[in-house]
Amino acid sequence: MSNTGFDIQLQLKAQLVNNTLRRLLASRQIDGDLKEAMRYTLEAPGKRVRAALVLWCCEVVEGRTNHNSEIAAAALEIVHTYSLVHDDLPAMDDDDMRRGRSACHKQFDEATAILTGDALLTLAFEVLAEEIDEPTVAVKLITELAKAAGPAGMIAGQMADLKAEEIGNRKPVVSEVEPSEIENQLEYIHINKTAKMFRCAAAMGAVCGGAGDTQFNSLCEYGLKIGLGFQIADDILDVSASSEQLGKTAGKDAKAGKATYPAVIGMEKSKQLAKKLADEAITALQPFGPEADTLRQLATALLQRTR
Amino acid sequence: MSNTGFDIQLQLKAQLVNNTLRRLLASRQIDGDLKEAMRYTLEAPGKRVRAALVLWCCEVVEGRTNHNSEIAAAALEIVHTYSLVHDDLPAMDDDDMRRGRSACHKQFDEATAILTGDALLTLAFEVLAEEIDEPTVAVKLITELAKAAGPAGMIAGQMADLKAEEIGNRKPVVSEVEPSEIENQLEYIHINKTAKMFRCAAAMGAVCGGAGDTQFNSLCEYGLKIGLGFQIADDILDVSASSEQLGKTAGKDAKAGKATYPAVIGMEKSKQLAKKLADEAITALQPFGPEADTLRQLATALLQRTR
Repeated sequence: MSNTGFDIQLQLKAQLVNNTLRRLLASRQIDGDLKEAMRYTLEAPGKRVRAALVLWCCEVVEGRTNHNSEIAAAALEIVHTYSLVHDDLPAMDDDDMRRGRSACHKQFDEATAILTGDALLTLAFEVLAEEIDEPTVAVKLITELAKAAGPAGMIAGQMADLKAEEIGNRKPVVSEVEPSEIENQLEYIHINKTAKMFRCAAAMGAVCGGAGDTQFNSLCEYGLKIGLGFQIADDILDVSASSEQLGKTAGKDAKAGKATYPAVIGMEKSKQLAKKLADEAITALQPFGPEADTLRQLATALLQRTR
Repeated sequence: MSNTGFDIQLQLKAQLVNNTLRRLLASRQIDGDLKEAMRYTLEAPGKRVRAALVLWCCEVVEGRTNHNSEIAAAALEIVHTYSLVHDDLPAMDDDDMRRGRSACHKQFDEATAILTGDALLTLAFEVLAEEIDEPTVAVKLITELAKAAGPAGMIAGQMADLKAEEIGNRKPVVSEVEPSEIENQLEYIHINKTAKMFRCAAAMGAVCGGAGDTQFNSLCEYGLKIGLGFQIADDILDVSASSEQLGKTAGKDAKAGKATYPAVIGMEKSKQLAKKLADEAITALQPFGPEADTLRQLATALLQRTR
């Protein structure tokens, strides 16, 4: 499949995710400003890569997407969106732009952004509990999502990221910390903040498709590898792309003194590492035949993206 | 039962809740500052009224508390605690004191408080998904909690509360808005922000005890009534009690120009309304015999509390 072919695949999945998000939000009785702010953030033009991964992993196992995977993809996207809303707050990353629009706290106000993030996070679990067909499946999905997004996952990564920023603002990151120590710290941040949510997407898709243990483990391994690769590619883009391409402020991580892969191991080595992770992700798919080709394509495409 | 007897009942339940909270937190792999901040906020000396209500409602139905009700009580308390952490943030209610200690963002920093709240909220759902014995029960509990705490519940109340504060800061609340309109707004805030979480506590306890429809509806009605009564009593205390008694800044609501019951309908009428709600709560318990006496006592005790 060509890169253009892959982009179309992704766009089709994004449309499906957007339709589900719209339906889920419209069917809930939420009042005034809160609903407007939730809709504003959910309707911002995200790539929906994580949500698409849920759907693709379900397809790999079951041959098609199903109702449960559509709900799971939407729930994961809702949690990802909440994390962006809170990440952008002045006390956090303090970013005014997100997905090519004003960040939620700029469009509305800080209190609304805090509550909108809280509302999205809570809604994600409500949706899983209420809309998934089988209670045993719902419980598995909620466990995966809560673990990946929670204090031993994404939030641990956000916390470490903020601390790394503090260190970065005090002194040049590279010169005063042992390379191996800072590489470990960087991997800790990226694994927790990003890769575990990709792993979770794969796990949720696998569960919705009714995967056996081998399939489940293979897809989780794949998800973790492309998640880490995705974040390294993101670091690279932060240096090389424009704000317009990114839909958020470019060069911001470097300016904030954040520990990024290009800053710590250099641009060339970062590209090599991302390539290596894509290869390892593809290797993890060995139990699957051609039905996993879209996932193989995704591993490569993530490295070649420009936004 | 005397008031002192009731206080002892509440303390015993609070101990059980605290033990469960400690166990749940200790058994999870959470790193560094985040775990410290989560422990700090969870270990602050809260009354645990909502959590105790889960346990009492389970007892009323099943004759005793059980594993599921202990987990549900802890999960509800975790969600209540997250809401306090976010409520106290500078962009929200901006309060430095909570449960007799520095608020989370004063003890640590704003970013840590935002992430700690997020971590607690996520943990509550993880705990329910992972520790409740039956998937069907887990799904019911998660649905109840997410609905009560989410954008059509507590967060709607927080949002309306902030907007009421804006109005209050611009002009005296009572003189410029029609009494009936502001009374409706006030009820909307209190029902959503407080009463639905009390209703949820009762619902979760009922589910854990295996309640039938009549028992379930009766306990939910009871929970909603005492929840609203509790919040009115809270408004009254904000005017009449000291900061030391409250463990948070006293007189703050009035100063912030918040719409409170004493400000809108006067102190005497507020006390009458709280009493009326306690009576209605007790009436809702008609399907139950002496096994619901603790709940009857709670309805009265909430009105007589001094903190």
